[in-house]
Amino acid sequence: MRRDPVPERSERFLRGAARLSEMGGDIADIGEALADIAPDVAVYIGEFAFGDLYCRPGLSLRERQIATIAALTTLGDTGRQLRFHTGAALNTGVTPAEIVEVVVQMLAFAGSPRVFNAMLAVREALADRDLLPVSPGRPADGPDRS
Amino acid sequence: MRRDPVPERSERFLRGAARLSEMGGDIADIGEALADIAPDVAVYIGEFAFGDLYCRPGLSLRERQIATIAALTTLGDTGRQLRFHTGAALNTGVTPAEIVEVVVQMLAFAGSPRVFNAMLAVREALADRDLLPVSPGRPADGPDRS
Amino acid sequence: MRRDPVPERSERFLRGAARLSEMGGDIADIGEALADIAPDVAVYIGEFAFGDLYCRPGLSLRERQIATIAALTTLGDTGRQLRFHTGAALNTGVTPAEIVEVVVQMLAFAGSPRVFNAMLAVREALADRDLLPVSPGRPADGPDRS
Amino acid sequence: MRRDPVPERSERFLRGAARLSEMGGDIADIGEALADIAPDVAVYIGEFAFGDLYCRPGLSLRERQIATIAALTTLGDTGRQLRFHTGAALNTGVTPAEIVEVVVQMLAFAGSPRVFNAMLAVREALADRDLLPVSPGRPADGPDRS
Amino acid sequence: MRRDPVPERSERFLRGAARLSEMGGDIADIGEALADIAPDVAVYIGEFAFGDLYCRPGLSLRERQIATIAALTTLGDTGRQLRFHTGAALNTGVTPAEIVEVVVQMLAFAGSPRVFNAMLAVREALADRDLLPVSPGRPADGPDRS
Amino acid sequence: MRRDPVPERSERFLRGAARLSEMGGDIADIGEALADIAPDVAVYIGEFAFGDLYCRPGLSLRERQIATIAALTTLGDTGRQLRFHTGAALNTGVTPAEIVEVVVQMLAFAGSPRVFNAMLAVREALADRDLLPVSPGRPADGPDRS
Repeated sequence: MRRDPVPERSERFLRGAARLSEMGGDIADIGEALADIAPDVAVYIGEFAFGDLYCRPGLSLRERQIATIAALTTLGDTGRQLRFHTGAALNTGVTPAEIVEVVVQMLAFAGSPRVFNAMLAVREALADRDLLPVSPGRPADGPDRS
Repeated sequence: MRRDPVPERSERFLRGAARLSEMGGDIADIGEALADIAPDVAVYIGEFAFGDLYCRPGLSLRERQIATIAALTTLGDTGRQLRFHTGAALNTGVTPAEIVEVVVQMLAFAGSPRVFNAMLAVREALADRDLLPVSPGRPADGPDRS
Repeated sequence: MRRDPVPERSERFLRGAARLSEMGGDIADIGEALADIAPDVAVYIGEFAFGDLYCRPGLSLRERQIATIAALTTLGDTGRQLRFHTGAALNTGVTPAEIVEVVVQMLAFAGSPRVFNAMLAVREALADRDLLPVSPGRPADGPDRS
Repeated sequence: MRRDPVPERSERFLRGAARLSEMGGDIADIGEALADIAPDVAVYIGEFAFGDLYCRPGLSLRERQIATIAALTTLGDTGRQLRFHTGAALNTGVTPAEIVEVVVQMLAFAGSPRVFNAMLAVREALADRDLLPVSPGRPADGPDRS
Repeated sequence: MRRDPVPERSERFLRGAARLSEMGGDIADIGEALADIAPDVAVYIGEFAFGDLYCRPGLSLRERQIATIAALTTLGDTGRQLRFHTGAALNTGVTPAEIVEVVVQMLAFAGSPRVFNAMLAVREALADRDLLPVSPGRPADGPDRS
Repeated sequence: MRRDPVPERSERFLRGAARLSEMGGDIADIGEALADIAPDVAVYIGEFAFGDLYCRPGLSLRERQIATIAALTTLGDTGRQLRFHTGAALNTGVTPAEIVEVVVQMLAFAGSPRVFNAMLAVREALADRDLLPVSPGRPADGPDRS
């Protein structure tokens, strides 16, 4: 007998699933990945991360995704999460160039290994959506050309 | 003979110092803190972090500070940096409630110890500017009250 | 007008506050620390960390505290959290020597700087409760004495 | 001429190898993986991690594995280590559901990316032993269903 | 129209590219990997990491690579970077045994998971150059053989 | 009855204590700090970190301290350790300017918050020894002055 990958249906969960759907994700995918080991994790992510935190007022979804891309780049070992949140960022109005911009900024705070690895994960997510190449920033504000 | 805390004056450095000044900071403060050990670090921060990265187009300063607050919360051991960048966020149009909002969101990505410590650092910076208490988000979207 | 440091009263929150109380903590303390900046964080910690996670069956509170001491030692920059959770560990049946034992084991997984810093935080919490010195393990299984 | 993957045979090493064997591991496997580059690492792990630390009294092997799973989840970039220590946890009396429980608890301390990645590594180790699906915790204490 | 993977040519960039070349690397490889998403990252790495930092006097390239191997081992999630910098270390006069020695020393500071993962990455880079097996240190100073 | 802060006297421990002494440290200081909570930690540090790892051939003590300063800068939350190892670096032939140089290089790998915090810890240790100001690198290879 197959178990329901997302067994719980609190109001918070439903709110979170709707928010995630608005961001282009599907809570069922998270549930499916952990269905036979820890379905509760998908429920908690649905309830807490998306139903509680991502449903708070005070920041737009676009701004929340900017914060998330920065955090995941800094944390490291987050290729899977960056691929997902790149998609969510695109769905909430962040452009490919802006996602790249957030990761580039992390050169100052997290160092080049974290930035390089994050960029490769973002690149994969953009390639899947046929969004490469990303147009670079305007030259006048680009790297040093003294 | 006292050494100049900020000995270098490249175009990139001057551009970075101006950008930092616009964010309410003063490159001389960074230079002063490390003047007798590593003045070059202030120069590199002025040139690279503020002159190169923070002068890039493609994200507003407000958005860059949202990314920075998220990254510093996640990194940990960054109380000093969070106090500075809270001020810089305020000076680039991020409200106290929005700064708090970014830190709260990190409960999903970095866990509660990082969030608690970051919040105490942000709190200190806001207290210094007489900006407490911070008005909370609207109840209808706040924590679970089922 | 002073704000209520713990404004929310969901069933999950009350369950978490009771669990925390059983562990010797007081959710009001967390609320108080962040009352003028982010009272919601105390609510989320009450609801999610203590009401959801710490109320799950499947592990004793004693075992949960063993896991928590290990995690905080590994994470770093967690002196404040280790002081609190040392008290909570004592209240759930972990002895001082067992807390020390968990931290010592982290020499293999997190390295000596993390272990040294964690031990100093645990030491402070034990000193506050007049629980020093901690009796060492039996010599026969202690360090190399070849 | 092939080199011995585990060249050293101190009393501490033999004690550690025996302890590791009791946990279902084989020091020769670690030695083999690094035999042509750093056989000493296997020796140090045998001597120090397993011969010194894991042979200390004061915590059961079961409790030590609870601490280890928590630490590895928090540390990140530890898929290989989590796969090994999941097996060792099973061999020292931790059930699959209890291993999962430790990882789930880390949602509070290390955030969801670390938990998700750790769960996938644990899942692989359980799948290799034909131990999926893992029975969930009792509903009455599960996620919010208000 | 294909974009130039390394569009900028400042003096600092050229100096960095030359330094990198001296270390056995090629800035074009970094540029190529990110050419369609963030060519500026290769430019910044060329200018700042290699043109500014690696061109500073005061430490030999050999010593800089010792520092870098230590840092990457400690940081974690740096397999790609360790493979590259193992080659650069070899090209600046660090022997395979010395690279291994730096990683082994990290057992004290970063714990065995970081060391094990780093060693596997170093091993790959040495295998690609047909430099295995690495001769171990002299027995008299090796692991405990009391 | 007061306990001996360093109760164990294996050959490895004595070798490590001698090595530490050569580096200007005193194992009794570590033992004293943890005497009433975990004297074994000082023993393990004496035996394993200094008796095993730091007594290995293949790298000079000077080079080992370069690696250690890099690792501690990258790890974060290591002010106490950096103060100690700055002294040890000085005692093994690393100059103040070289210690600074290692920390500066970490701007590329660990980001500016880690570098800034590490530099402040190194600065304290140098100030205690009346070694400030540190002479900067030669201008010709310093920051950008185009």
